[in-house]
Amino acid sequence: MKDITGGVVAAKGFKTASTNVAIKPQNTKRDMAMIFSEVPCVTAGVFTTNQVKAAPVKWDYRIVNEFDTAQAVVVNTGVANACTGTEGYEYCNDEAKATSEVLGISPDSVLVASTGVIGAKLPMDKIVAGIKKMPDLLSDSEEEATNAALAIMTTDTVPKQVAVEIELSGKTVRVGGMCKGAGMIHPNMATMLCFITTDADIDKKLLQEALSDIVKTTFNMISVDGDTSTNDTVLVLANGLAGNEKITSKNEDYDKFYEALYVVMEGLSKKIAGDGEGATCLFEVKVINAKSQEQARILSKSIVTSNLTKAAIFGHDANWGRILCAMGYSEAKFDPDIVDIYFESEAGKIKIVENGRATDYSEDEATKILSAKTVTAIADVKQGTQSATAWGCDLTLDYIRINADYRS
Amino acid sequence: MKDITGGVVAAKGFKTASTNVAIKPQNTKRDMAMIFSEVPCVTAGVFTTNQVKAAPVKWDYRIVNEFDTAQAVVVNTGVANACTGTEGYEYCNDEAKATSEVLGISPDSVLVASTGVIGAKLPMDKIVAGIKKMPDLLSDSEEEATNAALAIMTTDTVPKQVAVEIELSGKTVRVGGMCKGAGMIHPNMATMLCFITTDADIDKKLLQEALSDIVKTTFNMISVDGDTSTNDTVLVLANGLAGNEKITSKNEDYDKFYEALYVVMEGLSKKIAGDGEGATCLFEVKVINAKSQEQARILSKSIVTSNLTKAAIFGHDANWGRILCAMGYSEAKFDPDIVDIYFESEAGKIKIVENGRATDYSEDEATKILSAKTVTAIADVKQGTQSATAWGCDLTLDYIRINADYRS
Repeated sequence: MKDITGGVVAAKGFKTASTNVAIKPQNTKRDMAMIFSEVPCVTAGVFTTNQVKAAPVKWDYRIVNEFDTAQAVVVNTGVANACTGTEGYEYCNDEAKATSEVLGISPDSVLVASTGVIGAKLPMDKIVAGIKKMPDLLSDSEEEATNAALAIMTTDTVPKQVAVEIELSGKTVRVGGMCKGAGMIHPNMATMLCFITTDADIDKKLLQEALSDIVKTTFNMISVDGDTSTNDTVLVLANGLAGNEKITSKNEDYDKFYEALYVVMEGLSKKIAGDGEGATCLFEVKVINAKSQEQARILSKSIVTSNLTKAAIFGHDANWGRILCAMGYSEAKFDPDIVDIYFESEAGKIKIVENGRATDYSEDEATKILSAKTVTAIADVKQGTQSATAWGCDLTLDYIRINADYRS
Repeated sequence: MKDITGGVVAAKGFKTASTNVAIKPQNTKRDMAMIFSEVPCVTAGVFTTNQVKAAPVKWDYRIVNEFDTAQAVVVNTGVANACTGTEGYEYCNDEAKATSEVLGISPDSVLVASTGVIGAKLPMDKIVAGIKKMPDLLSDSEEEATNAALAIMTTDTVPKQVAVEIELSGKTVRVGGMCKGAGMIHPNMATMLCFITTDADIDKKLLQEALSDIVKTTFNMISVDGDTSTNDTVLVLANGLAGNEKITSKNEDYDKFYEALYVVMEGLSKKIAGDGEGATCLFEVKVINAKSQEQARILSKSIVTSNLTKAAIFGHDANWGRILCAMGYSEAKFDPDIVDIYFESEAGKIKIVENGRATDYSEDEATKILSAKTVTAIADVKQGTQSATAWGCDLTLDYIRINADYRS
């Protein structure tokens, strides 16, 4: 497997476009993006488990589950089109219709996604004007892919793209994606917005199975603030243009494709966690030697979600008591008296707790390790052989500044 | 029922003392307190459900459950005596022994409580020196009760006391308490530290039953940061000196006593929520017309716990989408399309959502209402007749400042 560039246009036959239609009037950055495949794609999707589902989530769920293929995705930021009633669903319909007209495809092959303020109405005149501009802007250049990744950002500070290349039955197959995260990030089944394209030829059911499986250990293991959004969506479009022997069973090619998809999804997940609203670092939590995968996942996610632990990480403070405390109030049983805890980063590795009690570690060394851009906490629960990793970020002054006044 | 002053010394026969022993060397405020009853008290307690239980929690659990009475409580701040192994439990034993010697009571009638940094060892020489000073300082004056309430504070900004007076079988009965909160506040069975005294004569089992029941709708309904502490403790001591006819069944007197205890516990809970670390306001959430108590409790607690909602409250921003979103990711089912949401404070009341969608409300009026010291959000789920209230606070820049550098 090879890391490549290009995000959603890395795979053959995919193009992207983006533009600024000032959905928030004061907005000067691009706020609409389109992904288009020259040929129809089989699709898979996972969506928010929040009972309050935004209209685009309902629309996409229908398209992914009731139709064999789709060919385009239209995304806007600024307004989430959530809590907008039946009118909100009509907006999705109108977006799909406008897109189908300019691209000459069926409205039922258009996926839509929105992110931004909940409750506000989509300014449909601007959205439709944006859609009409897209066909002339569509391009398979890396530059335009990056522009699209910029267009879907809200409070994100950097565009997020990952792509890899593998070989299947003698053919080059590519998988690439882009996503946006930042706030209201505590996915349960999916994260904010993530779009993955591939030119692999693969059966729709197997694509969905791979996606649903990988989500559990990637997007569902990140947390910025514990708030599961109304709009969480991960979509995969596979157009088959790589010309590989179609994957119709869980053979060796499936395993290779699965691994490529995993690398893209894990990479995008970590980018979201590390660029959480106001974050100054990526906070990685590994629970090792657990009795079960489930125990390891629950414990690692409880640590990565703890406000007090996250604030301590912001302060480069090895306040391990908060880590043990966060493990203690999780649903997973463990024995606090045998736990070892380590901190690790590019600056070194230090054991701070042995059998539930502080070691004689150096605070200076701990602070040095905790001052890196990626900080890992490792909890060895000594009960088995399973492990899990969760990703988050520190809780900072800027998180509050951003969220105390998000709508202005 | 009459509100009175005096906190833990409001009831007959209770005295308190406090002093500074510099448990944190730089500490200049009082950091140890004692409560003492002239005669033995029946006791009841509820404790943290965190699997990581501090040594004092284990000690008190034993005293409350294995002995008929207790007579003194010793409290320290600065060090939590949590994650300190068997040595930590020995410290409790030593504290009880030192206390028993200076007061002339059994070590098994001494309750202990600690709050502060997890993992650090109790400086026993200082603690014992503090205990030896206490007998001369014991007083039933209100001033000394307030000093004790100050002594148990950590990052709290104000001492927290409540007391009430009722009449039972012609006798005046008093119930009063003090508590501390501030951070790591998301009780599940109890909160940080709360001590309640009463001169009521009541059966030990009934006292425990009343306490356990009231905790569910008071301390268990507050949240500052979602982190359930290792040290959460609520203790009630009843010494019977009021001379009322002993309460041995759930008669009218029991109901009156229950109500008095409820008022004290609700009052102390709200004081903890409103004085959460860095908080600028008390955030109250009412869910009304729910199908069941449980549904109302889960929904209100999910809203009061949402970081995004709490940050919006800090910004005086009527970002109701975050409230509906937080209801949506809770475990409780409801119909988002029929929910009404109101904001209320001393500055007025405003309906901002009707049937899941924004009303035509004035942002200026909403901001005015949200700028009060106590802000209430009301969600009418229109599914039944039950309701619940949860209390929390806003999430502020100061919360991060305090917790990024708590140990220094």
